[in-house]
Amino acid sequence: MQIVNIDDPNDPRVAPYQDIRERDLVGRQGRFIAEGKVVLDVLLSTARFPVESILVLENRLTGLDAVIAKAPPGLPIYVASRSVMDSIAGFPMHRGILAVGRRRELQGAEHLLDTLPECALIVVLVGISNHDNLGSIFRNAAAFGADAVFLDTTCCDPLYRKAIRVSVGAALKVPFASFPDPVHLMAELVAKGFDCLALSPNGDSEMRDVRPAKRSALFFGTEGEGLPPPLLARMQTLRIGMVRDFDSLNVAAASAVALHHFSAGRF
Amino acid sequence: MQIVNIDDPNDPRVAPYQDIRERDLVGRQGRFIAEGKVVLDVLLSTARFPVESILVLENRLTGLDAVIAKAPPGLPIYVASRSVMDSIAGFPMHRGILAVGRRRELQGAEHLLDTLPECALIVVLVGISNHDNLGSIFRNAAAFGADAVFLDTTCCDPLYRKAIRVSVGAALKVPFASFPDPVHLMAELVAKGFDCLALSPNGDSEMRDVRPAKRSALFFGTEGEGLPPPLLARMQTLRIGMVRDFDSLNVAAASAVALHHFSAGRF
Repeated sequence: MQIVNIDDPNDPRVAPYQDIRERDLVGRQGRFIAEGKVVLDVLLSTARFPVESILVLENRLTGLDAVIAKAPPGLPIYVASRSVMDSIAGFPMHRGILAVGRRRELQGAEHLLDTLPECALIVVLVGISNHDNLGSIFRNAAAFGADAVFLDTTCCDPLYRKAIRVSVGAALKVPFASFPDPVHLMAELVAKGFDCLALSPNGDSEMRDVRPAKRSALFFGTEGEGLPPPLLARMQTLRIGMVRDFDSLNVAAASAVALHHFSAGRF
Repeated sequence: MQIVNIDDPNDPRVAPYQDIRERDLVGRQGRFIAEGKVVLDVLLSTARFPVESILVLENRLTGLDAVIAKAPPGLPIYVASRSVMDSIAGFPMHRGILAVGRRRELQGAEHLLDTLPECALIVVLVGISNHDNLGSIFRNAAAFGADAVFLDTTCCDPLYRKAIRVSVGAALKVPFASFPDPVHLMAELVAKGFDCLALSPNGDSEMRDVRPAKRSALFFGTEGEGLPPPLLARMQTLRIGMVRDFDSLNVAAASAVALHHFSAGRF
C-alpha cells in the first residue's frame, strides 16, 4: 500500500480527478470515477475493472482500512486535506472517497451470451437514457442475482459517474454488453433457450401467472414510449398488476418487481 | 376559464412562482408547487387540494386543453413567454407547466385510520428523509392501490416540490398523515385489525411465504439504519429474498416489491 500525500491540487498524479463535473460531460478517455466507500469496496472486491488510484480525504483514511486491504499491491492511495480535495474536484467533495478505474473494451453481446450459466436470468434494456434509472436497474439486477445486463446503443453509459453511484457499485459488478438491434438480440436469445419476456403496462399476461423458466430474459423499455412496437409484436408481453387510473411504475421500480418475481427459487 | 397574459415577472399575481428554488428551501407558507402536465392532471382530477392558479408557457397552452378542462371555474391561468417565465422562476423552466396548490391542515393519523376501508393496504414510513425516495414510495403506493401513507415526524415533506414531481402526483392523490411514535401507531394498527409487517434485510420470514391479510400495514425504515430496533422487536419482520453479498435494495425499490406482493388479488 502506497500512501502519497497530495498538497498541490495541480499535482499531475491527481489529474484524472480534476474538474469532476466538467469531465462527466466530456468523457474520461477510457477511465471512470467510483465514489464512496461501498462503491470502492465493490470495485476492489469484484476486480472486474483495473483500478489506477484512490484519492481519499485525510480524515477518512482510518475508516477505510478493511476496504483498502483489498487493493492490489502498489496501488497509489492519494491523501489530501479538505481544501486540496475540493480544489481538485472543483466542488465540495463531501464523500471524500474517490477512485479512478479503467474501462475494458466493451464485450460484444454474443460473447457475453456464451458465458452465461445454464440457469440464467438476464436484463435487456432498450432506450434507458436516464442515469438514475440505469443505476437503479443495475442495483436491482445485482440484488436479485441477474447474470448480465444487455443495453442497446441508445441506452446511457453504466460507467457514467452518477450511474455507478446510484447503482451502489452494481455497474462494476454485473457483467454488461451492448447490442445494436433488439429484434436480432431476441432471436439470438431464443436460439439459446431463453424465454424472452417484455414488461409493458399493456402486456397480455399478468406477470404473476408466468412461472420463471430456466433461462429468462426480461426486456424493459423507456418510460413513456415503452419498448418499440415491432419488438413487442414478436414477444410474450407481461404486465404488472396495478391500479388502472394511475401513471405506470417507474422503469426501475418495474425492474425490481419483475426481477423479484423471476428470481424466485434462486436464493 | 380565465386566461391572463403575464408580461412582467414582478406581477404580484405570479409572486408564488417567484424564485422557485430558493423558496423550496425556506417554505411556501401553506402552498406547494406542482410541475408538469401529468402532475397537474392528478392535482385537478383528484381535487384533494385546492388550486390557486396555473402558470403556463405560451406554447404549451394548446396541448393542455383536456387537463385544464378539469380546473374549477374561474381558476386563473397565467400565460407567459419563455423569457418571462424563466425570470419568474429564476431558472430555465423547461417543463413550462406549473401550478400553485394550497396545503390542507395535516390530518392526524388516528383520523385517517378511521377512514380506511375494511380491506386496506397501508404504508408506514420511519425516517425517510430523501425526497427522491419519498416521492418514489408515493408513486409505488398509488400504482399498487395503497389506501394511505403514514409518515413519522422525521420523514421529509411529501409536498416538497421534488417529492411531488418524483411521485408523478401520487403525493397529491394518496392520503397521508403524520404520527410521532411508531410503536404507538403500531399498537393502534393492531387494535384496528392490521397485520403489521416490517420490511428489513434481516427479517425473520421470507416475504413470499406471507399471505396478504385483509388489512396489512407495511413498515419501511431509512436506508442504512433501517427501522428502529425497539420497533422491530415488536413486529413480524420480513426479508425480500436476494443475493447475500450485495448491498440491500433501495428503500423505494423494496416498497415496490413489497406493495406488489401485498396487493395481490386487489386488481
